[in-house]
Amino acid sequence: MKPMTQLKNDRLLRALRKQPLDATPVWIMRQAGRYLPEYRACRARAGDFMSLCQNPQAACEVTLQPLERFDLDAAILFSDILTIPDAMGLGLYFEEGEGPRFRKPLDSAKAIEQLPVVDTMRDLPYVVDAVSLIRRELNGRVPLIGFSGSPWTLATYMIEGGSNRDFVKTKTMLYGQPEILTLLLEKLAASVTDYLNAQIAAGAQVVQIFDTWGGALSAAAYREFSLRYMEKIVAGLAPGPDGEKVPAILFTKGGGMWLEAIAATGCHGIGLDWTQDIGEARARVGDKAALQGNMDPAVLRAPVEVIEAEVSAILQGYGPGSGHVFNLGHGITPDIVPDQVSALVDLVHNLSVNFH
Amino acid sequence: MKPMTQLKNDRLLRALRKQPLDATPVWIMRQAGRYLPEYRACRARAGDFMSLCQNPQAACEVTLQPLERFDLDAAILFSDILTIPDAMGLGLYFEEGEGPRFRKPLDSAKAIEQLPVVDTMRDLPYVVDAVSLIRRELNGRVPLIGFSGSPWTLATYMIEGGSNRDFVKTKTMLYGQPEILTLLLEKLAASVTDYLNAQIAAGAQVVQIFDTWGGALSAAAYREFSLRYMEKIVAGLAPGPDGEKVPAILFTKGGGMWLEAIAATGCHGIGLDWTQDIGEARARVGDKAALQGNMDPAVLRAPVEVIEAEVSAILQGYGPGSGHVFNLGHGITPDIVPDQVSALVDLVHNLSVNFH
Repeated sequence: MKPMTQLKNDRLLRALRKQPLDATPVWIMRQAGRYLPEYRACRARAGDFMSLCQNPQAACEVTLQPLERFDLDAAILFSDILTIPDAMGLGLYFEEGEGPRFRKPLDSAKAIEQLPVVDTMRDLPYVVDAVSLIRRELNGRVPLIGFSGSPWTLATYMIEGGSNRDFVKTKTMLYGQPEILTLLLEKLAASVTDYLNAQIAAGAQVVQIFDTWGGALSAAAYREFSLRYMEKIVAGLAPGPDGEKVPAILFTKGGGMWLEAIAATGCHGIGLDWTQDIGEARARVGDKAALQGNMDPAVLRAPVEVIEAEVSAILQGYGPGSGHVFNLGHGITPDIVPDQVSALVDLVHNLSVNFH
Repeated sequence: MKPMTQLKNDRLLRALRKQPLDATPVWIMRQAGRYLPEYRACRARAGDFMSLCQNPQAACEVTLQPLERFDLDAAILFSDILTIPDAMGLGLYFEEGEGPRFRKPLDSAKAIEQLPVVDTMRDLPYVVDAVSLIRRELNGRVPLIGFSGSPWTLATYMIEGGSNRDFVKTKTMLYGQPEILTLLLEKLAASVTDYLNAQIAAGAQVVQIFDTWGGALSAAAYREFSLRYMEKIVAGLAPGPDGEKVPAILFTKGGGMWLEAIAATGCHGIGLDWTQDIGEARARVGDKAALQGNMDPAVLRAPVEVIEAEVSAILQGYGPGSGHVFNLGHGITPDIVPDQVSALVDLVHNLSVNFH
């Protein structure tokens, strides 16, 4: 590896490793997104969403946009969670105003048996190139977060053929043909591990796994069909260039009841949605992992005094010491006014000084 | 009150009061519904869904249908959770294939200030008549469960104008004009208390409050804007004809992290969705309340051996003794084959004998 520039702002890494800090780091899920006019302009130039993801220059540009506006403590690769199924040959596309869809969803056990494991350098070079470019352009300003969808979450889209909150086909397979689902999840876990390791090799300093739909499972099925594969991925992550384990954050939306089990995977951080009480979460997780979150994105529509009260309550709830990464409890929505985000980021930094 | 027929099957009441039992009682959310061909026939005759709800004879008929097929331990009033907002003048209607909608959603503080509190005997006589009729027709076979939506859940539909999983308008009010939302919730809590007491006077022996959307709130907002009003309602419930408090079950979908707080309301039972581990829930709630649930409705699409394994795991998870009412973790879906329900009900009775 060639030597990388020293990080100027390492708050995120220090928080995830529970090392002393001057202030709580903050980044925002979907921080490069439609609520930013400069993003919308770039997206319009690119044509469609996937063209934006597949063009490393454009992906780099939108990744850096929110850092120009806000005093954020991390950048996150601009990409989609469904690049892996797309690389497996399912044909990802987006209809305007609809969720993602696949031209060739997995409609049989045979389709799953024939599915290849992804070789990232061969199949997804545009993601690796984007990571390298962003890392170079960041020039050590803040760390870069790489990411992937979780095997369970990817499987739901691949089997349902798109977004679907009932997961009829996937759960029918889970309860009726669990060995076929397991085969798919094994292939996805191997693919995600390769994908995140390629991002790490290209410069990602933290990785996050988005388990958007883990919360749709029963407690037992969550452990067996979602958490088990995230644990395998965490165990399979390569060390960073400094030889240290690259911190992994696991975010299961609706996973608040299962924090102890998530912490036991060996992840460095647990993403909390906004339904958690962060103080109770810290009491349950203890020193096992850092916590990331967890303001309701809806608070960003409220007056700044309300944002201040909510930020304060979350910082107070977590309490003194390192181990907290401030974030929303889910992605920011397109209707939010950027100045509200600016206020949020500054409030987190200013108010958190008292807790360090 | 005129004396009511002695109950022949009082398992549900005994479980909710944690009294000794021969077997675990079971009923199913939405047990009178579209998965039954006899329901679809009755619905077709009635014309539309609201005509069915508003006709006490027809509502009685569909309420009793599942009891003819399955060895269920309770009947639940056939009605809709949105009868109260409809009686308040919002104009409930259903578009085929869409969720419920209101002709006049609450679009201003003034609309909320002008909103009347419901007087059930005057405004919703069809519900009271249905309860009386069902109770008479049941003739003591099993207890009758009355129900209502929770104030928070009703408020979301009334403000959004229909189903909407992001709750943009409602949360904007919650964080921006909490005093207006509070006024609405106060009116709804008074209306729901009156509504449930009218159902109790007409013969409901248990009541359930459906807090379908409480799980969309932050932990703090849930206590302040949903649970607080359910607690008021529980405190305001009239005793039944025997002078004993009528058991209330609170069901907050996605409320698994907040069980201790829910138990502290004085409710008799807590409805669990399927994401809970019922053994952990029992350990947390202790003797404070009975637990109801919590099989994933998706399991009903699986072979009977799988249903058996899941029933067994839930019974085993709860463990020995009274205090468990078996149910699904959410309403049964229209695609389920009735024979699967039959198998489920019998499995619960047969397998639970060992735990009593």
